Amino acid sequence: MPDPLRDSVSCGVFMARPDLEPVTIVIFGASGDLAHRKILPALHSLHMSGVLHPESRILGISRRPMADSAFREGLRSACEKRSRSWSEGKGWDAFAAKASYLAGDVEDPHTYELLSRALESGFPRNVLFYLAMSPDQFPMTIAGMEKAGLGSAGREPGGAGREPGGAQVPWRRLVVEKPFGRDRASAHGLNLLLTAVFRESDIFRIDHYLGKEAVQNLLYFRFANSIFEPLWNRNYIERVEIDVLEQEGIGTRGGYYDGAGAVRDMVQNHLVQLLCLAAMEPPPSLDPEAIRDEKVKVLRSVPHYSASGYLERSMRGQYEAGHVGGASQVAYLDEAKVRPGSTTETFASFRVEVDNWRFAGVPFVLRTGKALDRSASEIRVRFRRPPETLFAGICSETLPSNALIIRIQPEEGIWLGFNAKEPGSAEIERNELRFSYSKGHGETLPEAYERLLADALCGDSTLFIRADEAEESWRIVDGLLESWKGENAPPLLGYAAGSPASEVGRA
Amino acid sequence: MPDPLRDSVSCGVFMARPDLEPVTIVIFGASGDLAHRKILPALHSLHMSGVLHPESRILGISRRPMADSAFREGLRSACEKRSRSWSEGKGWDAFAAKASYLAGDVEDPHTYELLSRALESGFPRNVLFYLAMSPDQFPMTIAGMEKAGLGSAGREPGGAGREPGGAQVPWRRLVVEKPFGRDRASAHGLNLLLTAVFRESDIFRIDHYLGKEAVQNLLYFRFANSIFEPLWNRNYIERVEIDVLEQEGIGTRGGYYDGAGAVRDMVQNHLVQLLCLAAMEPPPSLDPEAIRDEKVKVLRSVPHYSASGYLERSMRGQYEAGHVGGASQVAYLDEAKVRPGSTTETFASFRVEVDNWRFAGVPFVLRTGKALDRSASEIRVRFRRPPETLFAGICSETLPSNALIIRIQPEEGIWLGFNAKEPGSAEIERNELRFSYSKGHGETLPEAYERLLADALCGDSTLFIRADEAEESWRIVDGLLESWKGENAPPLLGYAAGSPASEVGRA
Repeated sequence: MPDPLRDSVSCGVFMARPDLEPVTIVIFGASGDLAHRKILPALHSLHMSGVLHPESRILGISRRPMADSAFREGLRSACEKRSRSWSEGKGWDAFAAKASYLAGDVEDPHTYELLSRALESGFPRNVLFYLAMSPDQFPMTIAGMEKAGLGSAGREPGGAGREPGGAQVPWRRLVVEKPFGRDRASAHGLNLLLTAVFRESDIFRIDHYLGKEAVQNLLYFRFANSIFEPLWNRNYIERVEIDVLEQEGIGTRGGYYDGAGAVRDMVQNHLVQLLCLAAMEPPPSLDPEAIRDEKVKVLRSVPHYSASGYLERSMRGQYEAGHVGGASQVAYLDEAKVRPGSTTETFASFRVEVDNWRFAGVPFVLRTGKALDRSASEIRVRFRRPPETLFAGICSETLPSNALIIRIQPEEGIWLGFNAKEPGSAEIERNELRFSYSKGHGETLPEAYERLLADALCGDSTLFIRADEAEESWRIVDGLLESWKGENAPPLLGYAAGSPASEVGRA
Repeated sequence: MPDPLRDSVSCGVFMARPDLEPVTIVIFGASGDLAHRKILPALHSLHMSGVLHPESRILGISRRPMADSAFREGLRSACEKRSRSWSEGKGWDAFAAKASYLAGDVEDPHTYELLSRALESGFPRNVLFYLAMSPDQFPMTIAGMEKAGLGSAGREPGGAGREPGGAQVPWRRLVVEKPFGRDRASAHGLNLLLTAVFRESDIFRIDHYLGKEAVQNLLYFRFANSIFEPLWNRNYIERVEIDVLEQEGIGTRGGYYDGAGAVRDMVQNHLVQLLCLAAMEPPPSLDPEAIRDEKVKVLRSVPHYSASGYLERSMRGQYEAGHVGGASQVAYLDEAKVRPGSTTETFASFRVEVDNWRFAGVPFVLRTGKALDRSASEIRVRFRRPPETLFAGICSETLPSNALIIRIQPEEGIWLGFNAKEPGSAEIERNELRFSYSKGHGETLPEAYERLLADALCGDSTLFIRADEAEESWRIVDGLLESWKGENAPPLLGYAAGSPASEVGRA
């Protein structure tokens, strides 16, 4: 039996697979920001590392009329700027030749007919659809695809069901970008819609945080070592802190962001995913379903808090004008497309418990914010203090607790804080055992999108969000957002742009 | 109540103590190698860091007639070469003024009378005697001191017994260099002799390994952190390896070494001490007696093996001619002062168990040797493997086990080997969390002898060997050496100088 994670390597970013399949990658929203910043450069990188079959094709769709040549020009400038593998245009012609463009409004049924006809006209029959557009267009697009018979639901299962040497059954897969719904109900509706058109196993709900090396390494760190797992429970862990902090404000995303806020934009997906990986039980195998089963179990163990339970566990804030890294930053309320007097939060802190035998009583503090003094994503596992009496006479304050820090960005690595003897004295000194990914590896790490696209191309869903995962995550977050409405709503704490996260709410 | 370890700091290497006491340091064997390589340079360094009271004096004794000026000349050249704090003769005059010399044969009772008279003639009344001579001269010297009433046994307890602000009671202490006896019986005899002349609390049996920062840090590492102690037992530890390996041959020490061998020279003291610190239970306090009580308990938990038990746990070797680090090295048998056909071991490996609830069944492998390919002293704690099935498909071989390496020299530091994900693939990669003492601290670490001398000056015996510790250690080692005698003696394995330790015995 092939090992799924191993397969995902051999079809993944670094090993060219002998039986690469030609694929058509259809990108809805191809002229948009996400396509140009992430998806197209990642495809270029996959092309350069030989992960794309030479006959693969890229078909961009968006409303703006544009010739193939114009699309390729935009593609080139995107790859030049953003592709990890760009090297003076090397291999460009072969890559550009794969790209074509289809102008079409997703509201127009005709678009899907055009697409359907195009796919019949000599494009590879394995198709990866990528929804890289505004989420309010998801339902319409899915419906349009359904009508034109573009989904996988009615077809013979492709790809994975294929026997070695047997007949090739083409597959159709769908990659959906976040946000996946705006509450549990809408996520559930979206899931119903998607699963009417695609099989669940063909749906890849992306969370690019899961494509990051340090995030994936969490599974290895916890389960390929014998010295951390014995400590990984409430007997030894006092508290876990999960931070995704950003220096950036919302920039040009006001239209979307003001309707979403930090909880929907970051907590429901990235932070909850990190929570799952930090708290999950060891899965019985590395099979995608086995791993996702364990993640869902974590979410189900987060209690249904009462409104006051949510309130005492949370805090929200919104940035005011200030300076971030020397540059001035306008107040959130002065950003483009933000409603006057908006109470959308740009900072959120939310403490949950994972109320199972392993972690009952251990707070997991999820914290995220924009326009802060620094960008940093990390998981900090704080261990209980050792008994103090032994060193009480030596350590002037209380003995620092041990902490394990798993840094996801900016510098992926692991830090293990411990207490040592200050050389030449008897004092206690805080020290760190360190490991940095980048220092250990000369080459740049693969971009999250590369890894995830490669996985989607070979049908490995380990690093994607399953339907029940998405809904259970919304269940937790819905309660929080509900508690923030109405009369008992907590204050929206103003913080000057450029503040440290620890200062928010400390007036 | 003053904390002893804290006290040892404030009187120790780095903090000048407000109530420094003037001390007379009497060094027997003052013209010898040890005095010039270690003791005198360490005293210079203590002088430079203000740990020696300005009125302190150094009185060197040995047989060779020599004027004070000649002694000071030798002292200067020793300090220039070896003192960590030598800086173009800065402070030299003040230091040199402290030093004087007394020529005298330790076999001659007159020597002790001269010494006694000298000590009455204006020298500080606190006296630290240092036996830096050949161990066969210990009994005679102690007997001589007894006759001249130089010991502490008959006097009012000094130093520690003094009340703040009360009358100063001068103290007399004795530092004894290794080897402390050559078996349990002789060590016991020596203890009887010493304790007839000095109180046990005034006797400082030195093992310079205990003065090393990394060795002291073991106590902090284990007991000031909450994350290692839960793993520090037979449930998680598979094996502990303690190495003290040297590139050097025996050099000019053939006269002593050929009668001792690696077990007496290294295992009985340094390796057994490292074993004690690695395996001991947490003491109830950092009081010297509390720590030494726990160390003795470890030794008492090492079983009394039968002769065949010793044989199956041990290995011995002797170096042959070869090359070490590019230089040629003669065979042990061709070294100066080695008896023809000597079967003295220059390499020993000895596996013991600490048969208590914490460590029953975990082998502790003690290994030492001379003329090897590298010099390295370290403790390697190897943890049990994690369950393998999860990563069986990914890891081509068995999953590497985790290991914690505490390096004592050459580069003092801590390494924690763990398994991580190879970036960009799913393969498992062995990585290390690292911490290096020297990198964390610009200045050079204090020499072991500085620390130990400072401790002896302020009466802190934590890092010195107690009588029962020395005897219990000999008990273990005596059995080993006994098993190597007679008909069933194991082969003395020849190894080419410059071999790796792991190759010894692999013919």
